[in-house]
Formats: sequence, C-alpha cells, structure tokens
Amino acid sequence: MHITQLVFRAEQLRCQQAATEFMGQKFTWTETADRVRRMAGAFETLGLGKNDHIAILSLNSNVYFESLFGIPQIGARMVPLNIRWAAAEFVYSLTDSGSKALLFDKTFMPLVEKLRAEELPVEQYLFMGSDADCPDWAKPLEKLMADAEPKQKFEHGDDHLAGIFYTGGTTGFPKGVMIDHVALFTSAVSIAAASPADENCSVLHAAPMFHMADLATIFMFTVLGGRHVIIPAFDPEVTMNVIADANVTDALLVPAMIQMMFDHPNFDAAKLANIQRILYGASPMPEGLLRRAMKAVDGLEMMQAYGQTELAPIATILLPEEHVLEGDRSVQLRSAGRAAYSIQIKIVDDEHQPLPQGEIGEICCTGPNTMKGYWNKPEQTASTLIDGWVHTGDAGYLDEHGFLYIVDRVKDMIVTGGENVYSAEVESVVSTHPSVSQVAIVGIPSDEWGEAVHAIVISAAGAEQDAEAIIEHCKAKIAGYKCPKSVSFRSEPLPLSGAGKVLKRELRAPFWEGKDRQVN
Amino acid sequence: MHITQLVFRAEQLRCQQAATEFMGQKFTWTETADRVRRMAGAFETLGLGKNDHIAILSLNSNVYFESLFGIPQIGARMVPLNIRWAAAEFVYSLTDSGSKALLFDKTFMPLVEKLRAEELPVEQYLFMGSDADCPDWAKPLEKLMADAEPKQKFEHGDDHLAGIFYTGGTTGFPKGVMIDHVALFTSAVSIAAASPADENCSVLHAAPMFHMADLATIFMFTVLGGRHVIIPAFDPEVTMNVIADANVTDALLVPAMIQMMFDHPNFDAAKLANIQRILYGASPMPEGLLRRAMKAVDGLEMMQAYGQTELAPIATILLPEEHVLEGDRSVQLRSAGRAAYSIQIKIVDDEHQPLPQGEIGEICCTGPNTMKGYWNKPEQTASTLIDGWVHTGDAGYLDEHGFLYIVDRVKDMIVTGGENVYSAEVESVVSTHPSVSQVAIVGIPSDEWGEAVHAIVISAAGAEQDAEAIIEHCKAKIAGYKCPKSVSFRSEPLPLSGAGKVLKRELRAPFWEGKDRQVN
Repeated sequence: MHITQLVFRAEQLRCQQAATEFMGQKFTWTETADRVRRMAGAFETLGLGKNDHIAILSLNSNVYFESLFGIPQIGARMVPLNIRWAAAEFVYSLTDSGSKALLFDKTFMPLVEKLRAEELPVEQYLFMGSDADCPDWAKPLEKLMADAEPKQKFEHGDDHLAGIFYTGGTTGFPKGVMIDHVALFTSAVSIAAASPADENCSVLHAAPMFHMADLATIFMFTVLGGRHVIIPAFDPEVTMNVIADANVTDALLVPAMIQMMFDHPNFDAAKLANIQRILYGASPMPEGLLRRAMKAVDGLEMMQAYGQTELAPIATILLPEEHVLEGDRSVQLRSAGRAAYSIQIKIVDDEHQPLPQGEIGEICCTGPNTMKGYWNKPEQTASTLIDGWVHTGDAGYLDEHGFLYIVDRVKDMIVTGGENVYSAEVESVVSTHPSVSQVAIVGIPSDEWGEAVHAIVISAAGAEQDAEAIIEHCKAKIAGYKCPKSVSFRSEPLPLSGAGKVLKRELRAPFWEGKDRQVN
Repeated sequence: MHITQLVFRAEQLRCQQAATEFMGQKFTWTETADRVRRMAGAFETLGLGKNDHIAILSLNSNVYFESLFGIPQIGARMVPLNIRWAAAEFVYSLTDSGSKALLFDKTFMPLVEKLRAEELPVEQYLFMGSDADCPDWAKPLEKLMADAEPKQKFEHGDDHLAGIFYTGGTTGFPKGVMIDHVALFTSAVSIAAASPADENCSVLHAAPMFHMADLATIFMFTVLGGRHVIIPAFDPEVTMNVIADANVTDALLVPAMIQMMFDHPNFDAAKLANIQRILYGASPMPEGLLRRAMKAVDGLEMMQAYGQTELAPIATILLPEEHVLEGDRSVQLRSAGRAAYSIQIKIVDDEHQPLPQGEIGEICCTGPNTMKGYWNKPEQTASTLIDGWVHTGDAGYLDEHGFLYIVDRVKDMIVTGGENVYSAEVESVVSTHPSVSQVAIVGIPSDEWGEAVHAIVISAAGAEQDAEAIIEHCKAKIAGYKCPKSVSFRSEPLPLSGAGKVLKRELRAPFWEGKDRQVN
C-alpha cells in the first residue's frame, strides 16, 4: 500500500467523519484528503518530484500530519527532523539527506533563519504557519495549497522509499534509515490488527511526530480511519486536559510522559476517564508505574510496542490481556511481548549464530517492515542488515512462549571479571529500594575487573543518600558480581534522547575520559 | 513476510499448541514446522529449487497444508490444481505452468496415472499418502521427509512469487494468476485484523484448499497461530459433526455449503453451538439464508469477504457488526462490505475513467495484494492489470460510506433495448416469490431488444411452475425493462464453478448457439 492511499481509502470510508483536530481547527477526511492532494499539487508546482527529499522541522500540527501523505504522493521522500537536535545535527542531516526543501513552523523560524547561513542543499523553504507570519525568505505553504491544482495520482520513486528517518542517535551522529511504503504499511496494519481500537476511536498525538513511534501511530489510526487529536508537544497538564475535553480514547505515550502525568501536582484520574488504551514504548516501562496507571484508571488497557526506527518500527507487542498484574503470568509484564504479525525474531551470539530458546544474545528481526539500509552508509548497513535480518543492538532472550525479554543495549552491557551483567536487571532491583526514585546502571573502568558495575541514583524526595544500603539491598536479591560496586547520586534529571531513552553514553563519559571502552 | 515464515513464527509463539488435526492425526506447531522443513529438504534432495513450479492435486489434508509452506521455502512456486477439472484442463495447466513436480494423494492416483500418458513437463510424481500405497511410478513423500535433512533457511525465487493460482474459469480456459509473498501475507493480515478471531480459535477447512478462499484462510489462521481442523472435502453432515466434535470456532464456507448444511435432513443447530464465526464469500449470499443462519445459531457472527484470485483474494470485508438484520442499516447486508485495510477501490466506466460515488461501473482494486499478472498471458495481463489496478470484471457501485454493492459480472450484464440490467437485482426479486427455490437471470438473444431478460428457475418442492406469476411478481417490484420476458424451469442443479459460482456461460450457451454475444 502506498502510504498516501491510506488517506484516500479513509476518505472513501469515513468522508464526513473527523480526521484531524488541532488547536480548535477540525478537518474531515474529505477535507484532509483534499489538503493532501493540494499539498502534492503545490510541491509539483515548485518543481519537486520523484526521489526528492523534503525535510520537516516542526512541532506537531495538522499540516505536519498532512505532509506525511502529501510528500510521498509525488514520489518524494519525507525527512522528519528531530526537534531536539543541536544546529550541527540539523546541518548534518539536511546535508546528508540532500534535502531540496524544508518545511518548518513558527517555532523553528528563528532557528531555520540561522541555518540558512550554512551551506545547505535546501532550495525551497516552506512555511507551515499562517501566511501572514511567513518570512520573506520562505514561501507560505497554506497559500500555495489554496492556489494549487489537487493532484489525484500517487507516484513511486526509486525503491519505493517513503522517507529517510534519522535515528535518535543515542550513540554518535544520527543515521538516515531508509524505509519504504511496504514497511510503513505493514507495521501500521500489524499493530492495528493487534489493537482493539477501531474507526470510532480518537488517538492523541502528544509524542513528537518526527519520531517513528508517533509516525507509526499516525499510519495505524489512518489505516483504521480513526480521529487524530494533535497537540504541538507533550505537556503533562495539557495532555490530561485534552484527553478529557477532546474525548481521546487512545494515546501513544513514552514511559517518561506517563510518569510526568501521574506525578503532576494537578493529576486527576477523572480526566482520563475517556481513555481506553495507552500504547507505550520506545523505552522500558518501570513496573511500578505500570501498576499505578492501571490501578488509577478503571478499565485502562495498556499495550506495549517494542521496536526501533530500523523496523518502521514494530518488532513485538505486549497485548492488553497480557498485562496481568498478579499470579504466574505477571512475569510477562517484564517482557516486551511477542513478535508482531509481520516479524520473525531470532537471538544470535557474537558470531551471528542462532542461540537456543532461553539464552541471551542480540535480538534480530526480519519481516516486510525492515529498513532498506542506512542512507549513504553502506558499511553500517552491512553490519546491521545481515541477510535480511536487522541486528537491533539490543540484548535479550525469548521464553518458551515467544515472549521477548530485553536485558540491555548490547553496547551498554557490562563485562566484569569475565561475566556479563545486564543493566536492566540491576536497575530493576535497585529501583525497588525505597530511597531510590530513578537509577541508571553503567560500566566504569576497573583495573581489577575490566569494568565495574556502577549505579547512578536520583534519590526519592527527602530520602537519605546511602550507597551501602543500596548495595546491601542488591546483594540480598541478585548474584554478587551483578551488584553495584559503587553508587553516585545526582540531583539533575538523567539525560534522555529525543525518544526518552536514558543516554548511558553521556553518563559513562566522565568515567572513561582518556580511556577506550571495548564493546562488541 | 515470506509465507513460510508464518509457520516459523507460529512455532516460536505456539510451539506445543495444536497446529493441524486431520482424520485423527494431530500435529503441534513444533511438529508442523519440522515437517515443513523436512519437506523443503526433501524437495532439494530431488533437485527442485528456486523458480521451479510444483503442482498439487489432492483433497484437503495436513500434507496439503504443509506443502503450502514447504514449496515456497525452497523458492519454488506452488501450483494448486482445481480438483473438479476435466483431464484436458489438468494437462493444460500442468503444461502452461511448466510444473516439474506433481504432488498427489490416493484419491487422484488413478487420474494421475492416466495423465502420465500425456506429454507433460512433470519429472517427479510425489505421493502424499502412506508409503505403502505409493505406486511404483511415484516417490513416497512421507518417506522422503523422514529421511531428509530439515532445511532451516527460506529462499526467494524471481519476483518473490509464491505461486501460480489457476482461476476457477467461469469463462474459458483457466488463467494462471501470479501471486507473490507480499500479496498472500497482506491479504492474510488484513483479514486477520478485521476478524475478532485470535490464536485460541480453531478453523475448519472444509472448502477445497486449491481455491484461494481457503488458501487465504490457511494463511490468516497461521498468522494468528490458531488451530487448523482439516477434512478431505465438504460434506454437510461431516462438517456439522466435525464442528461439534473438534470444537471448531471458525469456518470458511461458501453460500452453497451453508445452504446444504441448513437444508440437510439431519441438520441440528446444537451441533453448531461451538462455532463463533462463519466467514463466507466467493459467491453472493442469499439474504434469506443469511437471516436463517444467524437466527438458528445463537451468537453466530457472520463475516463476508469479497475478492478474487487476482487479489490474493481480499477486496472487501463485511464485518460481523455490519450484519444488521433490522432497521436502516440492514441494507448493508446486500453489500459486500468495505475495502480491506490493504485495498483502495474505484469504479470506472467503459473507458476506465473513475465514476462518481453511487454510479455503477466496473470495480477496480489496487493494493499490495494484487497479482503480478497472468502467467504466459501478457495480453490478458495488460487488459486486467492497468496502472496497478486490477479490473475485477464485476460491476458495482459504492455508497457514501464506502460499502460496495456488486450488481453483476460485467460479462453477465444484460443490455436490453439500450438499458443495462444487472442480474443480481432481478434474481433478488425473483427469489422472493414463494414458488422459487433458486434462480439465475441471463440475457438471451432477442431480435427486438438485442438481449432479453430470461429467468432460469428451480421451483420450490411441490410448487406450481407458473411463469406468468413470477413475471407479474417482478413487475410489482422493479421497472418493466428489468423484468424477465420469459422463464424456463429446470430440475437439475444450476451448474457451479469450483468456487460455487453459477456458471452463467453454460446456462446461456443453448440460447446463443450459432450467434455472437456482444460484451464489453
């Protein structure tokens, strides 16, 4: 399925039903399909077409939503940019992708004005806000759309690519992941098939649209023909209010967002009464938070998706009925669920050989939603995409029912005295100590052990900072070699990637200054 | 998704759960995956491999099921043969497809022995029954599998084709429809997503496995990881008993099968108590039968799928909740439902131009589950697959909510006095006359009108054969030009295709002898 067809199909089935709602502005599916066709028409008027790359730098909006269908309609490729990047990363990704056009909104106007001083491949700057606010060095997209002839056909570029999606970059400079239409569609239909959501549902887009997690949610609910409620960016209080006021039934939220919402002084469970499901993912969910959310909101279904940009992005799904809080099956809560319909999983050792069920190794996935490779990076492609299998860089194991347990990033795994220690296991134990609010486990240099297990802790409000107590707590629960040898306390938040993942590289850096860390 | 991966994924998730049950023999998913890998290994030992065509001529069995995964695993293409064909059609399709191997069961052993006298491309005859029954001119598949090294990898042939599927041929000689892995998988996951069925369901395969309708059901329930209950062929009483005894929850049945089951003297609604859903399709469902089934079995969900081999085969789905017997929405019962997740629909005129919503024209579909073309038939491919759109040959229209109403085969449409008459509409009216059991409407030659509307009626038991009464009945309900000008009565059953479609070509033939019928 060409991704633009999802809108044309929704138009046929859902015509006068609500498609998007953003800051009080509402569009039906008929209107949205017309706006997509006009945007495609406008792009062609500007000389854009097949195989051109069109970047987007914007907060969430209905125009962002429409551009995800308007850009591929002409056979061009979308390049959504991470809004949290530094200037150097914008310059890098615009240059690396060779983006001929850049769509931007009012929030990023000052930044884009500065970026223009750099040598960039961008020929067209297209302003997504109201025409009156359009700077003289840019073209007003709304006016271009109003004047354009709606384009009826959809085109395919080479390799049927839909976009280049730069990875959050928890390690080093971002890489452009090449994703085709089949991958985006398969991922969307697989998760639509797993979710009880249907066309009568309304999904909240509070997570950033540049990220594959929310992108996939956009495509999933467009497959379903549901309603999209869009806010510019996540804010815990705004999110609660919009869920209540706009009758939101479904939301994609990363664990950090759920935590902020439930920890907010104005948290009010009654405001979440309409919500039927929270889809979460992109980083591990603390079990305590999961239990808290499910107990606070009556009938709330939780659904986990695990994956990565290279999988467009779905690998596994933990279904609502698999979120069992008590009894034997509650162990599944610690898993990332089972392979999505479109995914086959294997666990491999350092030599890429499959491991028996139950053994820990690198998680590899194959299926129609795998990437085509990294843009301009044949070497990284060759080491990640082997024989059609995406090597995720995550370490984990499968249980006898196909539930996948993720234990660490392969690169974050600690090798101490010849033993592998997986930070997720240690973090899970440390986090149950009453003095601990948040924890990250990293490997630090040790003359004796090669690496030593180190805990970086944010204490609970008012709690005593007692490293020994935390270490003793661990010794009672896990093997001695897994226990932290040392603990440091910090008061500032843990550094997070755009996707809400803890940046262990940054946490490790001060310890490793001047030293080389060996990783697989 | 390579179609063989569906079994490997099910193995990972469902290992010791039941996969197939056939004549008392049960295999788990672990065993089934092993049998598939052994079959693939056996094929390679015989020198079969990528791009080879392997035909199957057999009643339903677990070995048939396994061959649908074992054949594509080596990159070969499955060629399931219609068991109702005449010898000439077997020779034609084996020759046309260039099949290098033929899998056959005990039922078709005498036929295959005769076919061997013809000049065929077949080099290997592989017997699917027990080794002791294997004739000396064939090789015993079970023994080959037992001796084979299980093959772990799956291969792709050119164009990623999974098989050549010969169409039932309601018109002329069968055509080989080329279907790739993406098409089979997308079709399966789209219908899995629409159905409430899950991995705990058991599906009955009573419809013939050579037909795309049951094939799609096999792939759908393998995506889900459900249990497959297989009987050699449909029999109304056996079907009822197996549904009861094997705890069948889901079944694919064509309307003619449902009719035979409900009309059977030993019909017992209690035997259907376990069944949750009947998936029906392949030919129009009389509304009376639908109502009867839904009233007879408490809580029975009906789900319709419309499509054709060229769509692998899903085009539209009428969901259980859209089967509303009373009120405004009951009109949807006459529709074939709405576009599946993977399908976009348009209705076109004779010049292939899109028609506005509500107008009748040829139904065209596009999506990832369209065929790659007809094997060896570039001209027919060019006239059917235009710009990625499959021209179905069915005439119909879309309502304002995207529900598709099929009015006729384009070729069966009657042009009388310059007016189009759609046989489905007239049949629906005639069938409501109490004296009528079954009816087929065809166009017959008329000097005055070009074609005249003619009704072929099978009377209800004991009813009077009164042509005038039937014609008068119609005149009270539809426009005069649509009413039959004449009626003929027959006692033998209407001729049906392998898929249970009425063969209008055969019904028309005696009327048109020596005359040319003009069609679009």
